[in-house]
Amino acid sequence: MRQSKLFTKTRREAPKDEVSKNAILLTRAGFINKERAGVYDYLPLGLRVIKKLEDIVREEMNALGGQEFLMSSLQRQELWEKHFNQDRWNDKNVDIWFKTRLKDGSELGLAFTHEEPISNMLEQFVSSYNDLPFSVYQFQTKFRNELRAQSGILRGREFLMKDLYSFSRTPEEHDDFYERAKSAYRNIFNKVGIGDSTYLTKASGGSFSEFSHEFQTLSLAGEDTIYITDENKKEAENKEIGVKDLEEKKAIEVGNIFTLGTKFSDPHLKFKDKDGKERNVFMGSYGIGLGRLMGTIVEVLSDDKGIVWPHEVSPFDVHLLSLTDGSKVFADEVYKTLTSQSFEVLYDDRDLRAGEKFADADLIGIPKRIVVGDKTLESKMLEIKDRATGETSEMALEDFIKSISL
Amino acid sequence: MRQSKLFTKTRREAPKDEVSKNAILLTRAGFINKERAGVYDYLPLGLRVIKKLEDIVREEMNALGGQEFLMSSLQRQELWEKHFNQDRWNDKNVDIWFKTRLKDGSELGLAFTHEEPISNMLEQFVSSYNDLPFSVYQFQTKFRNELRAQSGILRGREFLMKDLYSFSRTPEEHDDFYERAKSAYRNIFNKVGIGDSTYLTKASGGSFSEFSHEFQTLSLAGEDTIYITDENKKEAENKEIGVKDLEEKKAIEVGNIFTLGTKFSDPHLKFKDKDGKERNVFMGSYGIGLGRLMGTIVEVLSDDKGIVWPHEVSPFDVHLLSLTDGSKVFADEVYKTLTSQSFEVLYDDRDLRAGEKFADADLIGIPKRIVVGDKTLESKMLEIKDRATGETSEMALEDFIKSISL
Repeated sequence: MRQSKLFTKTRREAPKDEVSKNAILLTRAGFINKERAGVYDYLPLGLRVIKKLEDIVREEMNALGGQEFLMSSLQRQELWEKHFNQDRWNDKNVDIWFKTRLKDGSELGLAFTHEEPISNMLEQFVSSYNDLPFSVYQFQTKFRNELRAQSGILRGREFLMKDLYSFSRTPEEHDDFYERAKSAYRNIFNKVGIGDSTYLTKASGGSFSEFSHEFQTLSLAGEDTIYITDENKKEAENKEIGVKDLEEKKAIEVGNIFTLGTKFSDPHLKFKDKDGKERNVFMGSYGIGLGRLMGTIVEVLSDDKGIVWPHEVSPFDVHLLSLTDGSKVFADEVYKTLTSQSFEVLYDDRDLRAGEKFADADLIGIPKRIVVGDKTLESKMLEIKDRATGETSEMALEDFIKSISL
Repeated sequence: MRQSKLFTKTRREAPKDEVSKNAILLTRAGFINKERAGVYDYLPLGLRVIKKLEDIVREEMNALGGQEFLMSSLQRQELWEKHFNQDRWNDKNVDIWFKTRLKDGSELGLAFTHEEPISNMLEQFVSSYNDLPFSVYQFQTKFRNELRAQSGILRGREFLMKDLYSFSRTPEEHDDFYERAKSAYRNIFNKVGIGDSTYLTKASGGSFSEFSHEFQTLSLAGEDTIYITDENKKEAENKEIGVKDLEEKKAIEVGNIFTLGTKFSDPHLKFKDKDGKERNVFMGSYGIGLGRLMGTIVEVLSDDKGIVWPHEVSPFDVHLLSLTDGSKVFADEVYKTLTSQSFEVLYDDRDLRAGEKFADADLIGIPKRIVVGDKTLESKMLEIKDRATGETSEMALEDFIKSISL
């Protein structure tokens, strides 16, 4: 895409009302726009990152056999109030509901998760052991009425989440899926570039089970405190589950996996086992917030010049800069060649000084930068810069293409 | 996908609480699930159709030069109340708001459209004539507090919508884009299979301009009344703009395009023209509801046996049925061959009677059906049935592949 056509612009100054690094950098670079605390728009560059993350997560969910669907945000009271053996409608039990009303006065909630409606919906489809096991997932906008929201896109009042739910016949069948989900999550965090600093962390199971697991990424911006129990295996424990004589580390919870047991299936979501005996379905839930994941990558991988996107989640593969009027024709050719080979290129064709273009490229953080200037016209050698390492090199276009296609 | 793994099932009986054809068929076939009137979940088959529609619409929006982004649902009061020259926050002026509250008591609305926040957001990026023209679009969940919602997914209280907004320097520049948007919309309705029954319809411009244009698809399920003014050009007029001496037709509004003028840019969204004079940006907005589009296709193209998807929006390319235990090995091979060539196949490998499988295939409505039975094992000829025409033929697998790849 030609940067002259992109409607967003970078800005030099940090927005006055932001304190978190992720929000400051993403706003300055034109990835997000704040509507109010905890509520952000995703501008074209930001949405491209979200879509890359979504594709990576979707691939792993499909590999688990997950079936994608999409549930509604609007939730009816009676389902959360008494359908299963608990009442999560009551604001005393759940203090993050946004609620609204239909014209007839009946109250609706905005979903912050989907255990109740998914279990209820499945009653029509599950009756026999032949119908199990399976798992379903969605990318869906969640709403949480947080008292405070000052962490940029790490903690949103409205945010995109991937939530997966598993339905098994027995605890053993569940455990098998749960372990496979752990591996899928590990793959995701490796692929998006934060695997080295992300720990599988034993945490409280809340009211559902003794333990759950979180994936915690080391960062001073984190709200959680963990102890690293095994550096090689990347394992940790959340401070909440016991006092350890280890160094405390701040971390961001980028994912969680829960054994729910029969909490949301009892008494209504049942199946007949091979002996004709009725049993409750055994459930698990597995979440990743896409905005939080994007924010974490920015917190962990940025430097003093701006964002540093790993290639897999970068809004573009290549940032092409044309420095002078004279170099535009050649840069146009490079742009045409790269895009015709399906590379995603942000092409800075704007009439700006070289220094401003360099600063913008560093801020936006696309992993590979190609500079075309007057010098290039003679030598035909492109100046390539790696955003992460800062290393520069000179290459002919065809060699560059080979190097990034490997 | 193997149908034995699909968690949804078809049902013979119409749901008791539905009156509309689209909701009855889509529920029976397992595409949607009703949470309450006007609020539906998209189950795996349904979400696949929505994604196909989304891809078709996105391609046309990108061809227009539209930049994709994603705005928040949660909206702050002050922006809608007084920022521009009108007050759409007041429930007396807009009677479909869902509103909710933050913990500090401040009111939030759930977006039913995005003119106010998009104009406001753009103030930071638009200052000179060099920054214009451009257009932006999103696929975003809208909320509308409808008094009644009995038309299935034709009129939702929560629904996925593509909304595009254009920003021009002059009315002439706007008109040029507006005409291109008309063509893009025409392309979309042709591609999704309802072009023949869809009319570009002159309608009231509401409070924004004298006229707007709607795309109206003939259907008895429609809430609108139109007069066809030119059958060849597929043009019509909405009854609301004048008494015509023509036959009245019921129609569903599947899209609309609006000239907004400076209604949402005055006084805050301005640019300096070439003479240094400040002007308000000239705007347009362009909507298509994806659920309504899906529902319309069902209303228009179904028959007494079920849904008839056009190939471009069908959840799968092919419905493969294995009729007997003996034919499963051969059917497995056909499935493997087709999927390895990137065809999307729903493979009915369930242990059910042939009659039930045929009825389900007709109900679900995938355009091509392949039947593998004991007879196939000897002849190696597949029985192919076209869902729309009912025509059957016998073909070797390789010939079938050639026929659908054309």
